[in-house]
Amino acid sequence: MSDLDALARRLEQFADARDWAQFHTPKNLAMALAGEVGELVAEFQWLTPEQATTLMTEDAEAAARIRAELGDVTNYLVRLADVLGVDLVEAAHAKIDANEMRYPANTYRGSTRKAPSDH
Amino acid sequence: MSDLDALARRLEQFADARDWAQFHTPKNLAMALAGEVGELVAEFQWLTPEQATTLMTEDAEAAARIRAELGDVTNYLVRLADVLGVDLVEAAHAKIDANEMRYPANTYRGSTRKAPSDH
Amino acid sequence: MSDLDALARRLEQFADARDWAQFHTPKNLAMALAGEVGELVAEFQWLTPEQATTLMTEDAEAAARIRAELGDVTNYLVRLADVLGVDLVEAAHAKIDANEMRYPANTYRGSTRKAPSDH
Amino acid sequence: MSDLDALARRLEQFADARDWAQFHTPKNLAMALAGEVGELVAEFQWLTPEQATTLMTEDAEAAARIRAELGDVTNYLVRLADVLGVDLVEAAHAKIDANEMRYPANTYRGSTRKAPSDH
Repeated sequence: MSDLDALARRLEQFADARDWAQFHTPKNLAMALAGEVGELVAEFQWLTPEQATTLMTEDAEAAARIRAELGDVTNYLVRLADVLGVDLVEAAHAKIDANEMRYPANTYRGSTRKAPSDH
Repeated sequence: MSDLDALARRLEQFADARDWAQFHTPKNLAMALAGEVGELVAEFQWLTPEQATTLMTEDAEAAARIRAELGDVTNYLVRLADVLGVDLVEAAHAKIDANEMRYPANTYRGSTRKAPSDH
Repeated sequence: MSDLDALARRLEQFADARDWAQFHTPKNLAMALAGEVGELVAEFQWLTPEQATTLMTEDAEAAARIRAELGDVTNYLVRLADVLGVDLVEAAHAKIDANEMRYPANTYRGSTRKAPSDH
Repeated sequence: MSDLDALARRLEQFADARDWAQFHTPKNLAMALAGEVGELVAEFQWLTPEQATTLMTEDAEAAARIRAELGDVTNYLVRLADVLGVDLVEAAHAKIDANEMRYPANTYRGSTRKAPSDH
């Protein structure tokens, strides 16, 4: 069993033990994911790019908060995908496959512009 | 190598081949993650809870879009954690450990109220 | 002076009095807005649609938190628009003008599907 | 009637003309708001702080997209507040009142640390 499958099973047991599966609808889990990502973004909002880059080694309290937020985001993402029946790793690789086609390395080297169909 | 480690290495190669690592600062990746989660949430916004629950089997186009959005979210989350040096699976289990203490099954069964320190 | 202009001026004075204008870049304010919207969404995440609809009159504590979150979201949105030089009310009406063209009432009555160009 | 009240009435008429009020529950509108804020954040994600600051005058296409996203965010925020019966300008000023107490100018000048109760 992969790491993410094991995590999905533990999250299911956690929810079942509390009779929380009833709340774990796709809509609700997507909202919870958005809420946790908001908390994660907030950790970085006032930092300079340089401060954000060195934060994990230079601010132990902030590093612990960020680790906790990343854990929350991961848990809701894994739970949402599990409820929807989606394999996250497969979906992620499929998206990179598509992006390799849309963003040829030679054309987009050093550029942040979007591929034509994105707007 | 775990599934997520393999994904992180592929994402790093994808970025390096395009000289995009310069853009992949923690702040920028957190913003990209928020953007993709916004797109994921938008897929569910007008659905009834029931429609959202059966969507993956009853609407092939929506299912494909949601799979793609979940792939995008996973990729930015894995890339952000990689840049920050955080192990997502470890962080996720640590958060469940903490939640098992904060939300004893007997006290919180069937309840959505937050543990006291959250407000 | 409109209500929003007065609010923008008060927010500018609040920032200037604390020498915080240096932090109020468009990127940082967009992140702060995303963080506050995440907190707002989190208030509704576990509620049934019915509970969410009656919340403001039936749960005084939740109502106060939601009012505070709406205040935070408004403040960062107004501050961001001010820093960017955008008139929010004008931008909002322009978007409704566009949506009146894209979503003719007769074609989209009772339907949540998106206009063709959105995907 | 204030600018925001006029906007709220126009949004209500827009929804009623399409029989969309049934979809405009607090949960759904909060999700729509999160989706639009995600699109707004995405406009800034790969820019340097300097590029983001000069964008509105130096990139007419990006400026038009950002104006449109700010319009979308405003519309969903105003509509959500209207459905909840919250006066956004009042809520915004109440939050600044509170922040003036929590963040005395002398103590927090030039500092981005949070007031104690926030963590």
